[in-house]
Amino acid sequence: MGPEIERLVTLLAKLPGLGPASARRIAVRLLTRRAELMLPLAETLGAAAAAVRPCSVCGNLDTTEPCAICVDPRRDQGLVCVVESVADLWALERAGAHHGSYHVLSGALSAIGGITPDDLSVGGLLQRVRDGAVREVILATSATVDGQATAHFLTDRLKPFGVAITRLAHGVPVGGEIERMDHGTLAAALRARRPV
Amino acid sequence: MGPEIERLVTLLAKLPGLGPASARRIAVRLLTRRAELMLPLAETLGAAAAAVRPCSVCGNLDTTEPCAICVDPRRDQGLVCVVESVADLWALERAGAHHGSYHVLSGALSAIGGITPDDLSVGGLLQRVRDGAVREVILATSATVDGQATAHFLTDRLKPFGVAITRLAHGVPVGGEIERMDHGTLAAALRARRPV
Repeated sequence: MGPEIERLVTLLAKLPGLGPASARRIAVRLLTRRAELMLPLAETLGAAAAAVRPCSVCGNLDTTEPCAICVDPRRDQGLVCVVESVADLWALERAGAHHGSYHVLSGALSAIGGITPDDLSVGGLLQRVRDGAVREVILATSATVDGQATAHFLTDRLKPFGVAITRLAHGVPVGGEIERMDHGTLAAALRARRPV
Repeated sequence: MGPEIERLVTLLAKLPGLGPASARRIAVRLLTRRAELMLPLAETLGAAAAAVRPCSVCGNLDTTEPCAICVDPRRDQGLVCVVESVADLWALERAGAHHGSYHVLSGALSAIGGITPDDLSVGGLLQRVRDGAVREVILATSATVDGQATAHFLTDRLKPFGVAITRLAHGVPVGGEIERMDHGTLAAALRARRPV
C-alpha cells in the first residue's frame, strides 16, 4: 500500500462508525470509481468546507449566517429546542414536528468520554434566554445516561431565568411492539400514561 | 440542510457499508472537524486520485507502473495469486504469507449482482499464463457461492494451458471454536483432515 493510500485509509478510519477494515474497503471503492465517486467527493468536501459554517445564534450548520431556521419569520423564535448535535436537528426537521428554533450543544456530558459542561456550547443559549426572547426551552437530548445528565445540568442552569422548561416524552416508540420493549421504556410509558 | 451538505451526504451514502443515516453522521463530524478532518480528507482524496492508478500487469492499485509487487525481484513472479479485489490483496500482504505476484479480478461472478465473465479482468491473467511466465495460479477467491463460482470459471479457462492450479484451503479458522463453526466449514475441515 503506497503512502497516498495509507494516508487516505488512516483519515477514513477516523470517521464515526468506520474502522481500519471498512476504511480500506471504502478506499478501494473510491480508487476504482475515480470519476464517478472519488473526484466528486473530493470536490464536494472542499466546496462544503468552504461554504458551510456553524450558525452564530444556534450552532446549526448552514451556508447563511445566521442560519435559515434562525431568520425564518414563519418559525416561533421564542420556542427553542435544545439538541446534542446537528444530526439530531436534521432528524427533528425530517419529522417536521417542531416549528420553533434550535440550539445545538455540540455534545453531551459524559463521564466516560471526559465531556464536561465547559465542552458544551451553553453560553449562547443562556444569552438568548437572558435577553428575554425565549418563552420555552424543549430539552431534546438523548434518552441515554449522558443525555439525561445533560438535561439535568441544563435544567439547573435555566431555572433561575424563570423560562418554561420541557423535555421530550418517554414511551413506546410508534410502531413498537410491547413484548420487545425494555423494562425502562415500559415503566416510563406506564408512569406517563394518559387518559384515552 | 443546504444543497452543499445534501450533496455531501448523497455521495457519502454511496460508499460501501454506509447508508443515509451513517452518511449524515459522518457529514456532521466532517463539518465540525473542518481543519483536522474535512480539509485533509479533501486534499488526500485529490492527491490519491491523481497519483494512484491500477497496475497494467496485475490490477493492483499503486503510484508506480507496473506496481511495486510486479517489479520486485525478490518475489516469485511465476506464482500468481488471483484475488477478487485490491482489499483482498492488502489482506494477503498483511498476512505476509504470499511471496509471489497477484492478479486482481476486480469482482466475482454474481447471478444476483448481474456480474458476468465479461465484467471481470481475466484477459491479463490468461496472457501472462500464455506467455509461459506463470508456473502456478493460486485461486484466492472468497469461500462464498460467488467466489466459488468464479474459481470454477477460472479453472475452466486456465486448464487448457497446463498451468498448475491450486486454491486456498477450507477449514476451521485459526482461533476458531469448533462449537461455533457452521456445518459447511466442519464438513470441509473433516474432508481435508491431515495426518498429525
